[in-house]
Amino acid sequence: MSGIKDIVVVGLGLIGGSIAKALQLHTPHRVYGIDSSEDALLDACSCGAIAGKAGPEELAKADLVYLCVYPETALAFMEAHGGGLKENCVVTDTCGVKAALCAGMERLAPQGKYVFVAGHPMAGKEKSGFSASDPSIFMGASYIIAPCGAPEWAVGEVEALALRMGFGKTVRTTPERHDQIIAFTSQVPHVLACAYVLSPRCKEHKGFSAGSYRDVSRVADINDALWARLFLDNREALTAELDELIGNLGGFRDAVAAGREEDLQQLLRRAGQAKRENG
Amino acid sequence: MSGIKDIVVVGLGLIGGSIAKALQLHTPHRVYGIDSSEDALLDACSCGAIAGKAGPEELAKADLVYLCVYPETALAFMEAHGGGLKENCVVTDTCGVKAALCAGMERLAPQGKYVFVAGHPMAGKEKSGFSASDPSIFMGASYIIAPCGAPEWAVGEVEALALRMGFGKTVRTTPERHDQIIAFTSQVPHVLACAYVLSPRCKEHKGFSAGSYRDVSRVADINDALWARLFLDNREALTAELDELIGNLGGFRDAVAAGREEDLQQLLRRAGQAKRENG
Repeated sequence: MSGIKDIVVVGLGLIGGSIAKALQLHTPHRVYGIDSSEDALLDACSCGAIAGKAGPEELAKADLVYLCVYPETALAFMEAHGGGLKENCVVTDTCGVKAALCAGMERLAPQGKYVFVAGHPMAGKEKSGFSASDPSIFMGASYIIAPCGAPEWAVGEVEALALRMGFGKTVRTTPERHDQIIAFTSQVPHVLACAYVLSPRCKEHKGFSAGSYRDVSRVADINDALWARLFLDNREALTAELDELIGNLGGFRDAVAAGREEDLQQLLRRAGQAKRENG
Repeated sequence: MSGIKDIVVVGLGLIGGSIAKALQLHTPHRVYGIDSSEDALLDACSCGAIAGKAGPEELAKADLVYLCVYPETALAFMEAHGGGLKENCVVTDTCGVKAALCAGMERLAPQGKYVFVAGHPMAGKEKSGFSASDPSIFMGASYIIAPCGAPEWAVGEVEALALRMGFGKTVRTTPERHDQIIAFTSQVPHVLACAYVLSPRCKEHKGFSAGSYRDVSRVADINDALWARLFLDNREALTAELDELIGNLGGFRDAVAAGREEDLQQLLRRAGQAKRENG
């Protein structure tokens, strides 16, 4: 039986707002919120996503805290408030890059009695802010967890809540492996979408495009401050993955430019096989 | 009032099969089919998509012929059968690249009395063959037409049929402009999907991926012979467009590698603006 009763969500943007709403819908827990925007707090209160604004008292009582803000804001928040959390309060985050954040949390750990479990809900959409929050984005998605040395019961609490919020599964990994794979599955597609729409031909696509254009360009309009930070927090893995992609694209480009039909067919067959094998 | 009564669809694959079905559903015309696969012909007959196999007699009576085969097969078909078509029979195609095909059709024109209108229905899916055909893929899509000097009434017939089949709009352009824009809107996303899944990290994506991976990799498993040909039929424009993309990706890559946060934010802002302006 879970010991979680009071939860604080720090940052009521797309993800934090969706978490507050999902907890409200699917659990009996009391959820309090913190946000730099009074409007977001008011909206979250008036729609019932949170019971109210969390002050020092609610933080001191919290059994679990979700940090749904930029990595550096999460660290700054913990530096300011970590000492006020009770013993065994479970602190978890939703940041898109893990190694840098986990290292920062490790440095802060001695100042508090809480336990930290890193998390990354693999869900999102192209809009941001509380007004875009929607717990249905979690349905069936994967919730990645990097235990970072936290005790099993704490990791289990974060997993159990993820499943109750509607996630389809939880996956455990290390911060380093998370960052390497996420560079490929999430960061590269975002870079790609942005690099793609910078072509001068983008202005002329209307009437000449269908699903392929839409799919590749979908995430081209993203929060530049957030994503620049996420990219740089994962600099090494992302650079390596972009080099891999640019190299592979160069292979296709050279085969096209030189008219090497056999080579091109072989590249296409290898790609088709990778897609069939890996889904 | 249209003079179209008898239509022959050459090639009952994904697109040809879908056209036959759409004509059957939405027009009173008699539709005959030609395919190298007896199974496809039988399937098309038994589901009522075509009234039967087109022989020399049906071709001689045809008011309109859709060429839904590879570009070189379309040219070979016209070389063999163009002389047997009646005066003012409208011949149109659905090939994904236009300049090379239109030049070939122009060379063949003196041998027949038909008129040629180049077409490219902007619809498709990841599967191929008659069994995958489905007229609903046309709903709301764009149908590109390159008149190639055909008389207005003939272009109008192709446009009117496109709209009756469920396409949302028709767009007129030149073969050269078609190929340049299509390199960006369709060919690059297909190359991209293939180059993307060739990363060694692809094997590990499960549990770590969401919509972004799915969208970018969606068209990675495509008919290698068809697409290698389409790419090479548009060699110059595709090479230029891939160079553009590789260059833009390199800009992001270098900003990430060097930790230039301001530059990265600016690139992301430019991309966001392009996406908002162009949809």
